[in-house]
Amino acid sequence: MTEDTAQTQIVTAAVLVIGDEILSGRTKDKNIGTIADHLTAIGIRLREVRIVPDQEEEIVAALNAVRARYDYVFTTGGIGPTHDDITADAVAKAFGATIDVNERAVNMLLERIPRADLTPARLRMARIPAGADLVENSVSKAPGFFIGNVIVMAGVPRIMEAMLAAVTPRLRTGPKLISLTIDAQIREGDIAPVLAATQNAFPDVQMGSYPYDGDGKFGSLLVLRTASEDRLGVAAAALRTALTQAGLPWSDVAQEAAAKS
Amino acid sequence: MTEDTAQTQIVTAAVLVIGDEILSGRTKDKNIGTIADHLTAIGIRLREVRIVPDQEEEIVAALNAVRARYDYVFTTGGIGPTHDDITADAVAKAFGATIDVNERAVNMLLERIPRADLTPARLRMARIPAGADLVENSVSKAPGFFIGNVIVMAGVPRIMEAMLAAVTPRLRTGPKLISLTIDAQIREGDIAPVLAATQNAFPDVQMGSYPYDGDGKFGSLLVLRTASEDRLGVAAAALRTALTQAGLPWSDVAQEAAAKS
Repeated sequence: MTEDTAQTQIVTAAVLVIGDEILSGRTKDKNIGTIADHLTAIGIRLREVRIVPDQEEEIVAALNAVRARYDYVFTTGGIGPTHDDITADAVAKAFGATIDVNERAVNMLLERIPRADLTPARLRMARIPAGADLVENSVSKAPGFFIGNVIVMAGVPRIMEAMLAAVTPRLRTGPKLISLTIDAQIREGDIAPVLAATQNAFPDVQMGSYPYDGDGKFGSLLVLRTASEDRLGVAAAALRTALTQAGLPWSDVAQEAAAKS
Repeated sequence: MTEDTAQTQIVTAAVLVIGDEILSGRTKDKNIGTIADHLTAIGIRLREVRIVPDQEEEIVAALNAVRARYDYVFTTGGIGPTHDDITADAVAKAFGATIDVNERAVNMLLERIPRADLTPARLRMARIPAGADLVENSVSKAPGFFIGNVIVMAGVPRIMEAMLAAVTPRLRTGPKLISLTIDAQIREGDIAPVLAATQNAFPDVQMGSYPYDGDGKFGSLLVLRTASEDRLGVAAAALRTALTQAGLPWSDVAQEAAAKS
């Protein structure tokens, strides 16, 4: 697909990770990479990530900054039943919305939790800002929500993934960034002039270089990214030719191995 | 150590991760967790993380926002020899500093690279803003640097770790946040009232709850954090008593297992 066919408008996003435990190092975030992969695959460009502590004013300030700037904001963390789970209230505050226990959210909780166990703490998980749509959670039922351009998800990776899958059909997407990787079996310093010259000739194709060194092998993975398959092919052909002419060793990276590029 | 002895002033930091490859999902960041662990261990509080693309205006804006707000900013990524490595220039711009090839940085490169191989591309790695101190890189020699309150490091984890170790003796530190973990073998929803009441009684001790569920076991890890060993002990004792009185099952988590908390 080229930029001038359907879905020409680029759709952007930010991720806001909420949690003291990520900032202290106690928990190692896995959600950023998962969301980044998913958004790239469906045609949404992740442009910024922020990690903030469990403090209302910090969440509100960061959320308001990024929601004004990008088409979507995905938050993770802070929607459980304990006192340190303050994301829903912070999001309501950022939107100037009221927040209360939501009947539909309660019904979702009741699919898993007997009514007798629906304590005030557990009902916290059904507190949803006014005007928000719910985002289903196939793992543990307590829903996330979607308000304005902000999607509020859990921090537990398995639950976050379920919510991300549930909300995906509701997202507007744009042209997908497709990529191609060439393995240059030389150091970045030796590839730099050829890569820079090729980048100059194709300003519309994003080119990056990522060194590797280990198991006795070293080199540079050259990654080309653009939304246009045509331009990707032309730029890659030009880079291969330039590498060969410069006497530099290279090989194409198989499609499967390049899927992560 | 209590807050009123030596090193009473809290020292804060932000991390700025620079790289399109993190935002596209191609590369999964490992540096944030490493830096978070390290800063917690030496007595610096990580308060915010941002991930931005390889775009000068984005790097400058994010860097200026966080360096004004925290005692230190640690950046990772974008200091290699290729055209997409623009961090040093962006940092110089943020500080309004000139940037040029630095003789001491060149000498460091010469420890590993023969002078004949010191191409213009490789010399890019010796471009250092005026007024910056160099940060040694024991792995591949190309240095990071320290300007104002900003420490600029490589993105390759092994090299970032070497730079972080090299710069650590030069950092001002404050009271260390120490932590203690209690394993409550019940769901978060059941622990929430007891935990909230204990948190209210000890507002100076940060209390978090982190659910686990797997291998047929489920429960909530209750993590208490403060800079005061005394207060940590008193708050933990109160929480254990409250859990027992509420008839809830709990056990202390061994020191070693809790080291990650």
